[in-house]
Amino acid sequence: MYTVKVKLNKRSYNIIIGNNIMGLLGKYLKRLSIGNYAYVITNSSVKNKYGRILDKGLKDYGFQVKFRLTPDTEKSKSIEMSATLIKDIAHFDKKKRIFIIAFGGGVIGDLAGFVASIYKRGVNYIQIPTTLLAQVDSSIGGKTAVDLTVGKNLVGAFYQPRLVFSDINFLKTLDLRQTKSGIAEVIKYALINDSSLFNYLGKHYKDILSKKGPNLEFIVRRCSLIKAKIVSQDEREEKGIRTILNFGHTIGHAIEAAGDFKRYTHGEAVAVGMLVASDISMSLGLINSKTLQSIEKIIKSFGLPTKIKKSYLVDIIEAHFYDKKFIGPKNRFVLIEDIGKTKILENIPLRIVKEALIKRAVT
Amino acid sequence: MYTVKVKLNKRSYNIIIGNNIMGLLGKYLKRLSIGNYAYVITNSSVKNKYGRILDKGLKDYGFQVKFRLTPDTEKSKSIEMSATLIKDIAHFDKKKRIFIIAFGGGVIGDLAGFVASIYKRGVNYIQIPTTLLAQVDSSIGGKTAVDLTVGKNLVGAFYQPRLVFSDINFLKTLDLRQTKSGIAEVIKYALINDSSLFNYLGKHYKDILSKKGPNLEFIVRRCSLIKAKIVSQDEREEKGIRTILNFGHTIGHAIEAAGDFKRYTHGEAVAVGMLVASDISMSLGLINSKTLQSIEKIIKSFGLPTKIKKSYLVDIIEAHFYDKKFIGPKNRFVLIEDIGKTKILENIPLRIVKEALIKRAVT
Repeated sequence: MYTVKVKLNKRSYNIIIGNNIMGLLGKYLKRLSIGNYAYVITNSSVKNKYGRILDKGLKDYGFQVKFRLTPDTEKSKSIEMSATLIKDIAHFDKKKRIFIIAFGGGVIGDLAGFVASIYKRGVNYIQIPTTLLAQVDSSIGGKTAVDLTVGKNLVGAFYQPRLVFSDINFLKTLDLRQTKSGIAEVIKYALINDSSLFNYLGKHYKDILSKKGPNLEFIVRRCSLIKAKIVSQDEREEKGIRTILNFGHTIGHAIEAAGDFKRYTHGEAVAVGMLVASDISMSLGLINSKTLQSIEKIIKSFGLPTKIKKSYLVDIIEAHFYDKKFIGPKNRFVLIEDIGKTKILENIPLRIVKEALIKRAVT
Repeated sequence: MYTVKVKLNKRSYNIIIGNNIMGLLGKYLKRLSIGNYAYVITNSSVKNKYGRILDKGLKDYGFQVKFRLTPDTEKSKSIEMSATLIKDIAHFDKKKRIFIIAFGGGVIGDLAGFVASIYKRGVNYIQIPTTLLAQVDSSIGGKTAVDLTVGKNLVGAFYQPRLVFSDINFLKTLDLRQTKSGIAEVIKYALINDSSLFNYLGKHYKDILSKKGPNLEFIVRRCSLIKAKIVSQDEREEKGIRTILNFGHTIGHAIEAAGDFKRYTHGEAVAVGMLVASDISMSLGLINSKTLQSIEKIIKSFGLPTKIKKSYLVDIIEAHFYDKKFIGPKNRFVLIEDIGKTKILENIPLRIVKEALIKRAVT
């Protein structure tokens, strides 16, 4: 077992990482004294696989448990679903002291975290991420959100969990596409902050994809450390530090939106988004073609896409204007100068963005 | 004109208080550089009376203005209305840089502030309070919220405005009942923090109610100072300091809920709530009957109620368990030891609470 601390003064919390550790969850929760009634937001597939393990882990330590299922799609990240959950929680909450558990992947984590942030102006919540994407990225750092039709994550809050509990055991049942989707974020961490992780991924990609050995635990630890470090320095993305975590995401979000959040997983969209950002970086002379090729090689070796459907181009350019990271009409891109080193630039000429996109389009 | 500073480090802001000052609003907004597009959340009665003054005040300084009307009742403080507004804002926001103006009383301020807090994880907003209640209390301090059926203000956020702009001129058109509703909060400030304000109110109540002379401006300044001081010390109500602002509100909220938020104004409910809290204070030997009588006298002199309908008692005791200020099953009351001095006590025996309520009930 391994503990990573997210240092945020009064809002500090631990990320616990290990294999088959659900039996210890109750012990950690007891220490936080956050109440006795766990309101677990999850979906049916996670509950069917791991609901009993969580239930036992909590009840063994005297917690009461209520499971609340939400649909297993991005569609459940809505204001309407948030309202439904909050009304349900308020009915249960009489004379109880509830805390919320987000038990699932990124969608569940974002939704449950948002609900926790606005119910009673903020109640305690715990992240128990069950996907690689959620363990390495979305469960850490307190960015919670739901979507609007015009754009993803447009409604939300910065609201930190009291604990992140990452059990590697959950990753065993992930299908290949979900695993790859998480890997895209792992590649992101390597590209923005950790060239040795980049080399590690290049060497071990086969074992990682087949989930052999302790590779996944190593990856979750390494990425959790990077994310914790960045979030500690710039919790609310005000200092241009946390911003680097958006590498590949400006275009990535637009790709997801163009595909109506169905055609591409988040990781697939981010993979192409990172390549577009790398293409732009090369256009601006920040990296050379050799570096670009090594990035492309890693993404290919994990079976992630390097191209998008040409017919989406117009939608992507359109959607990218709705991105909430924009400052007024100016665009802003996280680019790279080297493996492990970023550079943020504003006002990239639309021509250069378009060229990079066209390069990544196939009919 | 008078400026009160709410000191909260990076989230500090000014409260500007004066008579007929809307012509200066644009100047203050320019200094904040918060964008050019004002999305004004208001209701039709405020817009009809003062919409043109605001519109001119903004356009004279080059701002674009969009008015968005909400129903003029507590009912508009809902998650559903928040969702409607956010979707509307998101459609306007493309390529613009909007900020939100809450233009109205407490309901508008709470709703618009909540919308601002969760749209894009927080956008700039300004409070322009048009009622006495909003100017002395709800526009200051960043408590934003909407209601659920089971309880008031159960969904919300702590989210500070960038400016509060209190024009006393707006108070001239307030009807007597609205004025009195604000006065109840003024009496609260006197009771919890300012015995000289208490004496002032006792001396000038006739002029205050008839809005003669500079009394209202004095009151708004004095209360803004007290609230700013308290909020600066305990922004998120974590240190037991801000808690004293809830004097009279534990029972007050329950009274409002029992009357379905229609029978009593917020101030009327708080008036009786303060008396119940004072009764409990006397039962526990914190104050003597002379002090209680002087409190009762002030409340009566402003024509605020000192009793509630007996048939509401059961509902009030019931509703009081839903109060979000409760810690688990324990109750917690802000009581007083003297005019201007509070004491917070937990676990007041239900018998004493009931006795105090019964004393305040009439058939």
